[in-house]
Amino acid sequence: MRRVYMDHAAATPVRREVIEAMLPYFDEHFGNPSTIYDMGSKIKQVIEEQRVKVAKLIGAKAEEIIFTSSGAEANNLAIKGSALAKQKKGNHIIISAIEHHSVLNSARFLERMDFEVTFLSVDEYGLVDPERLASAMRPETIIVSIMHANNEIGTIEPITELSAICREREVSFHTDAVATVGNIPVDVNGLGVDLLSLSGVSLGAPKGIGALYFRDNLRLMPLIHGGIQERGRRGGTENVPAIVGLGRAAEIAVKELPDKTNHIGELRDLLVAGIHERIEQVKYTGHPDKRLPGHASFCIQAIEGEALLFMLNQEGIYANTGSACASKALKTSPVLVAIGIPPDLAQGSIVFTLNSSNTREEVEYVLEKLPFAVERLRSFSPIWGKKTAA
Amino acid sequence: MRRVYMDHAAATPVRREVIEAMLPYFDEHFGNPSTIYDMGSKIKQVIEEQRVKVAKLIGAKAEEIIFTSSGAEANNLAIKGSALAKQKKGNHIIISAIEHHSVLNSARFLERMDFEVTFLSVDEYGLVDPERLASAMRPETIIVSIMHANNEIGTIEPITELSAICREREVSFHTDAVATVGNIPVDVNGLGVDLLSLSGVSLGAPKGIGALYFRDNLRLMPLIHGGIQERGRRGGTENVPAIVGLGRAAEIAVKELPDKTNHIGELRDLLVAGIHERIEQVKYTGHPDKRLPGHASFCIQAIEGEALLFMLNQEGIYANTGSACASKALKTSPVLVAIGIPPDLAQGSIVFTLNSSNTREEVEYVLEKLPFAVERLRSFSPIWGKKTAA
Repeated sequence: MRRVYMDHAAATPVRREVIEAMLPYFDEHFGNPSTIYDMGSKIKQVIEEQRVKVAKLIGAKAEEIIFTSSGAEANNLAIKGSALAKQKKGNHIIISAIEHHSVLNSARFLERMDFEVTFLSVDEYGLVDPERLASAMRPETIIVSIMHANNEIGTIEPITELSAICREREVSFHTDAVATVGNIPVDVNGLGVDLLSLSGVSLGAPKGIGALYFRDNLRLMPLIHGGIQERGRRGGTENVPAIVGLGRAAEIAVKELPDKTNHIGELRDLLVAGIHERIEQVKYTGHPDKRLPGHASFCIQAIEGEALLFMLNQEGIYANTGSACASKALKTSPVLVAIGIPPDLAQGSIVFTLNSSNTREEVEYVLEKLPFAVERLRSFSPIWGKKTAA
Repeated sequence: MRRVYMDHAAATPVRREVIEAMLPYFDEHFGNPSTIYDMGSKIKQVIEEQRVKVAKLIGAKAEEIIFTSSGAEANNLAIKGSALAKQKKGNHIIISAIEHHSVLNSARFLERMDFEVTFLSVDEYGLVDPERLASAMRPETIIVSIMHANNEIGTIEPITELSAICREREVSFHTDAVATVGNIPVDVNGLGVDLLSLSGVSLGAPKGIGALYFRDNLRLMPLIHGGIQERGRRGGTENVPAIVGLGRAAEIAVKELPDKTNHIGELRDLLVAGIHERIEQVKYTGHPDKRLPGHASFCIQAIEGEALLFMLNQEGIYANTGSACASKALKTSPVLVAIGIPPDLAQGSIVFTLNSSNTREEVEYVLEKLPFAVERLRSFSPIWGKKTAA
């Protein structure tokens, strides 16, 4: 059966070149990089080469990169690590209301540890207002975390403006860039951020690897205490094959990113236009322009997103509903609530996230199958019956 | 050149069968296990199958296993997760003086958070005395962590006796079993532990994967906050290929463990006897019998362990000095200090850790090369000149 995969925010296949780069590090070059003999020191060298490649992708210096086991770990390290290291300076944290669970729940953990957290509301497009951030700042604010782009609605936040407000006040600014790195150009200096989380997910890197950028020698309490790995900021033997995979994927991304951004942007526009043409009562969620190029998200009136996913699944189409990690939580998406979508409409959330491998033919296939699926589901819906009868 | 690798506590090559088991999960079966469509739910199922295999290796129930990114992460989660979840019950923690850095530094982190930590001293063999533990217990003690075996001196602790003292007082007992799982039989019920950390290192599993066993529904604060993965106890997309690798390696270990234990025990005995025969003024560190089967550790008078490693490296022999993770820290090993080795003798630490792949011929090769290396280094040593002249 045909497989049209459009859930790249949740997972991407690891690229062939990336797998090949990793393979020798499972058995041939298996040494522990902390050992002092040749087998170890050569591998230490290989890790440092990957750090250079990952740094280059985001305009950072190699020594500003810490490898982690995921974007979620990088977010935890950024938020908790900064807060705990700066506890003497203050106890106030600001995050947006639409952050990923790893940021949101790190902040909630800190609330239990006597920190205070302000959750900034967003507008109908999911944008954080810089003025609202400025007025939420307090003398005791120590860290602000606003995501670069939201995975569920695709909106790209005005990070440069937001970070400038923090810089003026010497408050650290973190951005969760898991959704952007590999999809659009990301430059830590252009963005003006002090900390930035990324994962290999949009790069065709394997699961189990992420990274945190931290500016210069920013103070940071480790999340995983241990030995002297990652300059004392992350204990545990380095995951060498996965680090090599992330490095190779970053190298490829530097080369291919402009083409990828254009390609997925064009397909997305086709998909969005086609859906608006073929299905009535559909709300395009997130910002119309300030959004990830390969990202199309909708709320469809009078259907259940999960039921729609199952129907599409039967046609070999893979999409998502709600945030990638929370999709089994079975409650109304907090992101959709935050942008003011009424609960019944929020139930009909569907999200398509594209990658280089997607084609025009695949988009056409989705545009052929999706309207039938929606129509079928609506035919079972008592709400829809009333609406159309009215 | 010949390569005789005897540093398996630091790293082991991933087994061919394990790599083959992992490979399809990088690209063919790449879905996110939290997604609800078939690609995701099948992978969720695969993860649960691996949980059963890992549980079986240590006599646990599948639902008592949390996958982590390393043994170090498992140790951090066990110590900090227990302490922070039980903060209302008490603030006292007990660990031994010879724990791995990930346990030691987790405890030191908690000291900064207003917990009190007792560091239990050990005897000349590195053993923790159960009576000493009993008298260190306080009404406010909430967690005790004593490692199953020490990587640097090979000593196996009397965990069953130690855990009984905690059970009586309803205090959680954690053991870091990174050095034992895959080398000797480990059974969580026989040991009577509530929490147990393991990593793939002795199993021929890849880097970047570990697990924490936690008894039944023990309260545990997540270390990495995030979504609902690992039943809410560890956020971040599951590292599917590495989990599959750990599962396959656990399955192999269940089958091969008895033979492995015998084989590496025999080789170790040969190595130890040969070294005592050929080199004078050598101290065998750790317990003579209560020790890991493939573990031989010595302090050699009047040499520098690091210099010896480099000389052995030139002969294609790979061994270690001090603990695997701390070997670049360049200070006297805290473990050797704790068992009362004088600092000058501690400088001459060397550790051999064997695996199934090692052979009698390799041991003979080491026994041929090692005495020459020691003799050569001693010929440069002013201390040795004085000693032999005396």
